[in-house]
Amino acid sequence: MNADTFNELPSHVWPTHARRQEDGVVTIAGVPLPEIVEEYGSPAFVIDEADFRCRCRTMAEAFGGADHVHYAAKAFLTRAVARWVDEEGLCLDVASDNELQIALAAEFPAERIAAHGNNKTVEFLRRCVERGVGRIVLDSFQEIERLGAVAEQAGVVQPVLVRVKPGIEAHTHEFIATAHEDQKFGFSLASGSALKAAREVLEHPHLRLVGLHCHVGSQVFDAEGFSQAAERVLGLLGTILSELGSLHPGGREGLAQQLSTLDLGGGYGIAYLAQEQPLDVAAVAADLLAKVAAQAEELALPTPTVMVEPGRAIAGPSTVTVYTVGTVKDVHVGDDRVRRYLSVDGGMSDNIRPALYGAQYDARVVSRFVDGDPVESRVVGSHCESGDILIENAHFPNDIEPGDILAIPATGAYCYAMSSRYNAFGRPPVIVVSSGKARVMLRRETVEDLLALEAE
Amino acid sequence: MNADTFNELPSHVWPTHARRQEDGVVTIAGVPLPEIVEEYGSPAFVIDEADFRCRCRTMAEAFGGADHVHYAAKAFLTRAVARWVDEEGLCLDVASDNELQIALAAEFPAERIAAHGNNKTVEFLRRCVERGVGRIVLDSFQEIERLGAVAEQAGVVQPVLVRVKPGIEAHTHEFIATAHEDQKFGFSLASGSALKAAREVLEHPHLRLVGLHCHVGSQVFDAEGFSQAAERVLGLLGTILSELGSLHPGGREGLAQQLSTLDLGGGYGIAYLAQEQPLDVAAVAADLLAKVAAQAEELALPTPTVMVEPGRAIAGPSTVTVYTVGTVKDVHVGDDRVRRYLSVDGGMSDNIRPALYGAQYDARVVSRFVDGDPVESRVVGSHCESGDILIENAHFPNDIEPGDILAIPATGAYCYAMSSRYNAFGRPPVIVVSSGKARVMLRRETVEDLLALEAE
Repeated sequence: MNADTFNELPSHVWPTHARRQEDGVVTIAGVPLPEIVEEYGSPAFVIDEADFRCRCRTMAEAFGGADHVHYAAKAFLTRAVARWVDEEGLCLDVASDNELQIALAAEFPAERIAAHGNNKTVEFLRRCVERGVGRIVLDSFQEIERLGAVAEQAGVVQPVLVRVKPGIEAHTHEFIATAHEDQKFGFSLASGSALKAAREVLEHPHLRLVGLHCHVGSQVFDAEGFSQAAERVLGLLGTILSELGSLHPGGREGLAQQLSTLDLGGGYGIAYLAQEQPLDVAAVAADLLAKVAAQAEELALPTPTVMVEPGRAIAGPSTVTVYTVGTVKDVHVGDDRVRRYLSVDGGMSDNIRPALYGAQYDARVVSRFVDGDPVESRVVGSHCESGDILIENAHFPNDIEPGDILAIPATGAYCYAMSSRYNAFGRPPVIVVSSGKARVMLRRETVEDLLALEAE
Repeated sequence: MNADTFNELPSHVWPTHARRQEDGVVTIAGVPLPEIVEEYGSPAFVIDEADFRCRCRTMAEAFGGADHVHYAAKAFLTRAVARWVDEEGLCLDVASDNELQIALAAEFPAERIAAHGNNKTVEFLRRCVERGVGRIVLDSFQEIERLGAVAEQAGVVQPVLVRVKPGIEAHTHEFIATAHEDQKFGFSLASGSALKAAREVLEHPHLRLVGLHCHVGSQVFDAEGFSQAAERVLGLLGTILSELGSLHPGGREGLAQQLSTLDLGGGYGIAYLAQEQPLDVAAVAADLLAKVAAQAEELALPTPTVMVEPGRAIAGPSTVTVYTVGTVKDVHVGDDRVRRYLSVDGGMSDNIRPALYGAQYDARVVSRFVDGDPVESRVVGSHCESGDILIENAHFPNDIEPGDILAIPATGAYCYAMSSRYNAFGRPPVIVVSSGKARVMLRRETVEDLLALEAE
């Protein structure tokens, strides 16, 4: 891309409060990114608090209420994040005992927490029950038995959802309505497992089925996948009411009132690149809610409460990672082609997604304007591994130099959360920017941290 | 595989001191693995100290001396590991300032350390120079300048190698002798960059070129790649002597004495699966050393000292990861086919390699004999992600049950080193077994560790 384009910050990719000043320096929420590097070093994650909170509100509005939206903790969780989510009124999804413990340490109200996982430990289930977690999403027959025993022991009737595999699989830009069901999560709708699971739960005196759950995929752009899944799961709900209504003291009617939740999971796609468009959540939600209401009427059901579980769509765009350019190397790649390798001081330890999923990212110099001609470029990290690539193929201005500060946007989800200490790199800090001020959310890891686990 | 085969522990995949007792329990170095789980919980890494040390010795013998072998720290490094490597007389490769600091904290002799990296920070270079690191492997023209300045400032003449891209690329079972050079490391031989780099180093009063370095790939089984690379780099050495000999006070002869190191990097393949055969290091080394000697004679050079940098080949087979089976789920995958999903209590957080590289692993129940019929199976972790797969496709006996302890062998390299805290999983402990006793090398991470970085 040419220098003019390169100096722009596409607003659908960057945090809402990112601006390039007249001197070329980029600020977020009024804080110049080079100042963050000066104070906290690089690499560093910089999170725009107001952006994160605003996306919580957008989701809440789109889906008819903050209590219809569960923030998926796996995208990025600290106590501070849990408090933001709590203050915005959202619910929280946790997928491990430790995620639950972090949320509880932040005093997140347990009744607004949902617990996920294909292989929850008994410890995790016990903590959920004892602390009063709002609902547990059941994933296997063994788990129905395990949770039932735990709830009985605690003398509790635990609200649960049954996770259904609707046979829909949504990938980034397509979905497959007849996807085979070869994955670890949930109970198959097609095979009858889901209906059987609902029966077992309904028959258990210590479990209370409050609805159904499904999840079609991640980073989804084809919204049709969500509504097809909703349609199938609603169909199952109808079958459950017909076939199992007699298990409820209030009959089909009573059971219909109880099974009021239709949780459609997460997967709302965000833009990592300028040429991508994030999923229009408001439009998708309106369409989805209308379809669910219409189908419910058709099936003579009360309209269920549609719940969603966005993680990336809230945390992703709020954050950028700042790096310092170290080495710039031109490599002949044959036939007079040259590729410029821009090495930065982080890499696959702070962002495994390009190596793991082939995820594509973009970058900008944030310490000044650049004005060179475009040159084929690759942004690589500092790890001792040739696959340590952050941006595989881009055309960046040819005047990017050692010492320039480069920022990669949309790194708020699954970057810090999946970060490693490969090559003994300490994790970067996470710096919150808000109203012109920066503060530390997570400090940088030091060699002392790396040595702290050693027993000898 | 049938139950008999499944109960066997292929000796070329498992740690040397793994045995199955008459009661079906597997021990390593005399310590029953179920006892380790009982005491330290699961998942846990279990490392056979004598196996690790023995592989150091095998490498040393194969390559003509412990001081010809650099253990690649990136595979797995703690202070204890650095001490083992030191006690075995090997040298050590580090690829970051933190790896260097860990080695120094273990009192590893700096003169036996080599420093790698495509983007070494000035801090890292400075610590290398000030602490007397034996050699620094130069990777770019900018680095020649940076290190030169650092060495000058410190009043030191720093021994260095120049990393050469020989145009050879070795993958698991093949190598490409005309590989294009599209990666971040080293100076291209073909383009003349490597020769130019050698000149710049030789002209720098504070750098002392002591040889050349190259690295052809990882997990290599086709040894031809190593000898082809050696041949090309030796050819370059000849060119350097002819063209740059005049820069040395002793002329070509004097320079030839100085450039005595030919470092051929790492990449020696190990067996992850029973049907794989590890590279026969002794045979490969003998062949390689003979070829290098013959070619050196042909070029009228003194025979250089061949150095190697194994990481995986030393650390990999020494270690197994033990997991507890949680949920067992049969999934219909179409046409009457059923796949059994065995969920364990770890996953992509402790072993990202299957998801990252498509790496294949095997597993055994280590708490008892099994005797069921084989069934199509997949071993998955407990993370909230459908790609969280440890073993994608295996035929395991159908009597594996919740509570069984499953061990995956050959997890000593790049598993703990690349581990994450995804889903807030704490890292498993690393337990050393030796002469019938178990001790902790790295303790398990707790929720407190996860919260320790939080500033607010």
